[in-house]
Amino acid sequence: MDKNKQILLAKRPEGMPDQATFQMTEKEITQPENGEILIRTLYVSVDPYMRGRMIDAPSYVAPYKLNEVIGGGAIGEVITSESSSFNEGDIVIGGFGWQTYYTAKEDEVRKIDKEIAPISTHLGILGMTGLTAYFGLLEIGKPKEGETVVISGAAGAVGSVVGQIAKVKGAKVVGIAGTDEKIKYLKEELHFDEAINYKTTENMEKALAEACPNGVDVYFDNVGGEISDAVFTLLNKFARVSVCGAISSYNLETKDIGPRVQSLLIKKSALMQGFTVGDFKDRFNEGTVALAKWLQEGKLTYEETIKEGFENIPDAFLDLFKGNNIGKLLVKVAEPSKE
Amino acid sequence: MDKNKQILLAKRPEGMPDQATFQMTEKEITQPENGEILIRTLYVSVDPYMRGRMIDAPSYVAPYKLNEVIGGGAIGEVITSESSSFNEGDIVIGGFGWQTYYTAKEDEVRKIDKEIAPISTHLGILGMTGLTAYFGLLEIGKPKEGETVVISGAAGAVGSVVGQIAKVKGAKVVGIAGTDEKIKYLKEELHFDEAINYKTTENMEKALAEACPNGVDVYFDNVGGEISDAVFTLLNKFARVSVCGAISSYNLETKDIGPRVQSLLIKKSALMQGFTVGDFKDRFNEGTVALAKWLQEGKLTYEETIKEGFENIPDAFLDLFKGNNIGKLLVKVAEPSKE
Repeated sequence: MDKNKQILLAKRPEGMPDQATFQMTEKEITQPENGEILIRTLYVSVDPYMRGRMIDAPSYVAPYKLNEVIGGGAIGEVITSESSSFNEGDIVIGGFGWQTYYTAKEDEVRKIDKEIAPISTHLGILGMTGLTAYFGLLEIGKPKEGETVVISGAAGAVGSVVGQIAKVKGAKVVGIAGTDEKIKYLKEELHFDEAINYKTTENMEKALAEACPNGVDVYFDNVGGEISDAVFTLLNKFARVSVCGAISSYNLETKDIGPRVQSLLIKKSALMQGFTVGDFKDRFNEGTVALAKWLQEGKLTYEETIKEGFENIPDAFLDLFKGNNIGKLLVKVAEPSKE
Repeated sequence: MDKNKQILLAKRPEGMPDQATFQMTEKEITQPENGEILIRTLYVSVDPYMRGRMIDAPSYVAPYKLNEVIGGGAIGEVITSESSSFNEGDIVIGGFGWQTYYTAKEDEVRKIDKEIAPISTHLGILGMTGLTAYFGLLEIGKPKEGETVVISGAAGAVGSVVGQIAKVKGAKVVGIAGTDEKIKYLKEELHFDEAINYKTTENMEKALAEACPNGVDVYFDNVGGEISDAVFTLLNKFARVSVCGAISSYNLETKDIGPRVQSLLIKKSALMQGFTVGDFKDRFNEGTVALAKWLQEGKLTYEETIKEGFENIPDAFLDLFKGNNIGKLLVKVAEPSKE
């Protein structure tokens, strides 16, 4: 019989993780008992925040344990059900992570609707990444019509949704990304007003000032570091900075040092707020309904970079830090048994 | 006849200002025309924010002009009135700053009530400093009963009021200051729960951790720099940082560099917001009424350090950066003609 392939945390990375961070293993599949279901994994999500869980430090989610499966968002198909709530063939989503099978209790996963959009979108624009964009932009950034919204990591899973929601709200949207392909995507596919390639731009402050002649009212920050230092110089009075990620610092082996922001925040009466999507968990339904509606109305579009094969999950994860992917990065582990 | 003595900005300081930053001069007194009043200055306020106005850079208030009077909060007595709104002997407050006489238009000053408290308090606890404490703490910090509030610059004009309001709200209050006399004042006079002398404490993170066993829910920041870096390490989930001042950086000749805060803000879903009291100008009346009520009920107390003599204003201002004064620092320029 088939085995349950798993990817474990083999050691805690210092600096950039690599293949040696992970270990592939196989276990017997646990047959479901009463009230349980057996799930065959179809897609797994790889996300920058997982880097934070690989070290043993308190954060907003518990650190991964050594020699245990890397948890994270995943979609699977119910292949055996001992629960009255699920049928074989149901597509479910949960946090079971990097393994090919999972025996779940009823309350560990939830069914997803196969009709609104491809099932993979529930790990992306209709899932945590879409909700991260939705709440981080609307609850912290609060863009008003005509304001200027700058987004770093703009072509990524979250950033690309943030920019489109900001357009829905009537803002001027300026994206920062790191390849010409991404810049083209932001301007031509997502209709951002301006997009700046930080890797080929010598003077970011100048380029930003030209792209934002009215200053910056909202900054949605996925990267931190020097890019954010540059955006900060352009903040307007009463600007809002939604701090979603700091990917530039996740693999640093030294302290993340830069200009202190206090004086600037005072001068501009500006707000800077960190968040994680879980802060808004009581409102996920509201967010999902809004995102699905905009998707169906054609106001939102999305890109997925889908890698194939369970063995390629670590590679896909490491790719997140190379800055090459556009939109949501996923790994397809298996085909659903029927469409 | 008497002359109008004035203190002008003689040159823009680089680093710490000194006597050469200022120039004393005398001008004829301008007699009031119809609708105007002539004011004789009684008290002038010296405040850290004035340092920011001495350089030629955009900020929340316009920079001082070279060879013009240093503006700022001042209290005076009406000695000649050509206005139906003011009588001789009225005590008025305005922004006329460092000069012994001022000829004001009616809408440039307002009368103050001599009955509630000594008139000097209108430059302190019942004035901009009290309102800064009131709105910065209550609108941004939002302390809840039982939460821990940390205040830097705790024995200063603003910090000492912040701590007392936090006590009114039932919070645990921890102050940071720089002399043993201040520590004693915070604990014995203002009944702070804990007070830390950062100048004699070797390991601030450790001392803060001991003073705040439940972490920090609200940080009211007057100083920035390394003290704030240390407080940040203790922020709790959903902490609020009210950024009021960054006096540690005002006289720096190099860039203010330190740990970037982005990752920490994300981990803690924490908020950091800069403000100036003017952001709340529509609500000054509400704040003044609340402060006066607490003062009369004995829930607030205050300390003033009053220097004597117009010529000593520059010295008093420079003293702000030496960290010796407790409470509000003022200069008494003249006695009212009648009590």
